[in-house]
Amino acid sequence: MASDIRGEVSNKQVVLKNYACGFPKESDFEVTTTTIKLKVPEDSKNAVLLKTLYLSCDPYLRGRMRYTPVTDPDFCSYTLGSPISGFAVATVVDSGHPDFKKGDLVWGRRVGWEEYSLVTTPECLTKILHIDVPLSYYTGILGMPGITAYFGFFEICSPKKGESVYVSAASGAVGQLVGQIAKLMGCYVVGSAGSKEKVELLKSKFGFDGAFNYKEEHDLDAALKRYFPEGIDIYFENVGGKMLDAVLLNMRLRGRIAACGMISQYNLHQPETIQNLTNIVYKRIRIQGFVVMDYFDQYSKFLDFILPCIREGKIVYVEDIAEGLESGPAALIGLFSGRNIGKQVVKVTDE
Amino acid sequence: MASDIRGEVSNKQVVLKNYACGFPKESDFEVTTTTIKLKVPEDSKNAVLLKTLYLSCDPYLRGRMRYTPVTDPDFCSYTLGSPISGFAVATVVDSGHPDFKKGDLVWGRRVGWEEYSLVTTPECLTKILHIDVPLSYYTGILGMPGITAYFGFFEICSPKKGESVYVSAASGAVGQLVGQIAKLMGCYVVGSAGSKEKVELLKSKFGFDGAFNYKEEHDLDAALKRYFPEGIDIYFENVGGKMLDAVLLNMRLRGRIAACGMISQYNLHQPETIQNLTNIVYKRIRIQGFVVMDYFDQYSKFLDFILPCIREGKIVYVEDIAEGLESGPAALIGLFSGRNIGKQVVKVTDE
Repeated sequence: MASDIRGEVSNKQVVLKNYACGFPKESDFEVTTTTIKLKVPEDSKNAVLLKTLYLSCDPYLRGRMRYTPVTDPDFCSYTLGSPISGFAVATVVDSGHPDFKKGDLVWGRRVGWEEYSLVTTPECLTKILHIDVPLSYYTGILGMPGITAYFGFFEICSPKKGESVYVSAASGAVGQLVGQIAKLMGCYVVGSAGSKEKVELLKSKFGFDGAFNYKEEHDLDAALKRYFPEGIDIYFENVGGKMLDAVLLNMRLRGRIAACGMISQYNLHQPETIQNLTNIVYKRIRIQGFVVMDYFDQYSKFLDFILPCIREGKIVYVEDIAEGLESGPAALIGLFSGRNIGKQVVKVTDE
Repeated sequence: MASDIRGEVSNKQVVLKNYACGFPKESDFEVTTTTIKLKVPEDSKNAVLLKTLYLSCDPYLRGRMRYTPVTDPDFCSYTLGSPISGFAVATVVDSGHPDFKKGDLVWGRRVGWEEYSLVTTPECLTKILHIDVPLSYYTGILGMPGITAYFGFFEICSPKKGESVYVSAASGAVGQLVGQIAKLMGCYVVGSAGSKEKVELLKSKFGFDGAFNYKEEHDLDAALKRYFPEGIDIYFENVGGKMLDAVLLNMRLRGRIAACGMISQYNLHQPETIQNLTNIVYKRIRIQGFVVMDYFDQYSKFLDFILPCIREGKIVYVEDIAEGLESGPAALIGLFSGRNIGKQVVKVTDE
């Protein structure tokens, strides 16, 4: 890195230009370059300065690209003209915090979409201790999506061996893991995705018992009945809308729905309507929304489960890695048209 | 009772003439008279012959007035031309079952809407041991609606002292109890109902902190915001449809919805649509359907709670008692227009 006379280096950033309306467009973003001093500023005690390696493209970021009254720092609106932020993998360049030192690898949230990012809440960062796996995995299977899949499935779905599990957006960052974990538990697992290639992946690579392309099914209820003639015990909900409505018709008595996300609804001015909710009463269905942050304190328990699975090849993970910060906006908005195959990551620089 | 030469007596019945379409009409029923021998038939070992005292009008019976493929004997379609059945309070006239003897008072389900009813599944009957309270209470506060309110609130809503509770259909058989139990627990409780008189009842008789007439609110979201400026922790759902949609907008983080019933939807050809379901994800909401039968084995625990409350006047119960089997059809269908004030009961004969 070449630093100028004041000790500053250039810092490329992905900046939000305007709040997205409907499906976000590349033109809602701008890639600009500013400069940064590679030292934690005097007035930011405790902060950590990071060199960004991988950025995580996550559907929940859509909520931050609109104006919202939410004040939670992880869900509030992005500031226009500033770099967006989210989950990332990075190296510590300078640290004002006793838990981190220069050279540490970390993953965590509130990291800017920029080459160098000053994180003033280092409690949102976790040191990476296992590096025999790809570092990018800490944006996916070993990071937020992994924790989501694991606790969402075990804590929210209360699975039992032999139960029937349906996963939507099943080849995505979370879905591919839920399906594989459910298979390891001895469940019957069917997933849906939006292309032939993804459906193939579900069956051949992730070992789902069945998979279908929802875009080719004009009657989702009939499709679900084909794969679940005796109904669904567990639905891992990633999409919402019409799919949820069809699932409600096909849930079994005492079925459980983990409401992880509803990506089909995030870009609509008016959400799709649902009409089969009386099934919740008749079938004693439980629908439970959850947020992964509630499980971060159990990260080590999760690692104890997932690391051996990765090392022994029991669980595989497919990533879609876009190269360079410039490709960030397209990669991020591609989530909403299903462009990505597997977990969408942006590689900012070589490790 | 005057018996004829063969030892038979007349037996008035409420018979379903045709499956109801939309709102059920009195003309969907017929009150007819047949005869019955007041002895358990030889070929019905174990059966119990009852003299019906009180019949319970319950919203779930609407599901049985249509053609449905459901085979569960408590939820399947009624047989056209036969008396309908449901929960009731009765006296044993003759018994083939060792647990029951002539003169026993019982409450339970699968009792015909007729003066004398042969129950071939006496395991669905419970002996009434406490008669210092009105017998009709065993169709309400001491019967199915009471168990529904108690376990629905404590088991499904996971209430904590000081939480905000909203109850719809709040003056009904279940709602009035949920509100009073929640108040006893130290919650802030608001209910809605469909008339000025019912709203008055909620405030003056049942001690709700607030109450409103949903029919007078053109904007349910605004009404809920008025009573719950900081949101709802617990919603006891009895109505569904538009109300549920407005509630979803007003739930607090980690709110719980007990889906007990959705009476507003039972008579619609197309259920109302809901569009605010993404709130389930954002707010980690839990919606849980439940069926009271799952808690019948804990009846004695419930009685230990509720009987002292009744005797000490801590919980009161309002009933709407229609006189005579002939008034049955009107009383039953009146549930769906909200004609009843409190628990709707049909008194068949003097005790």
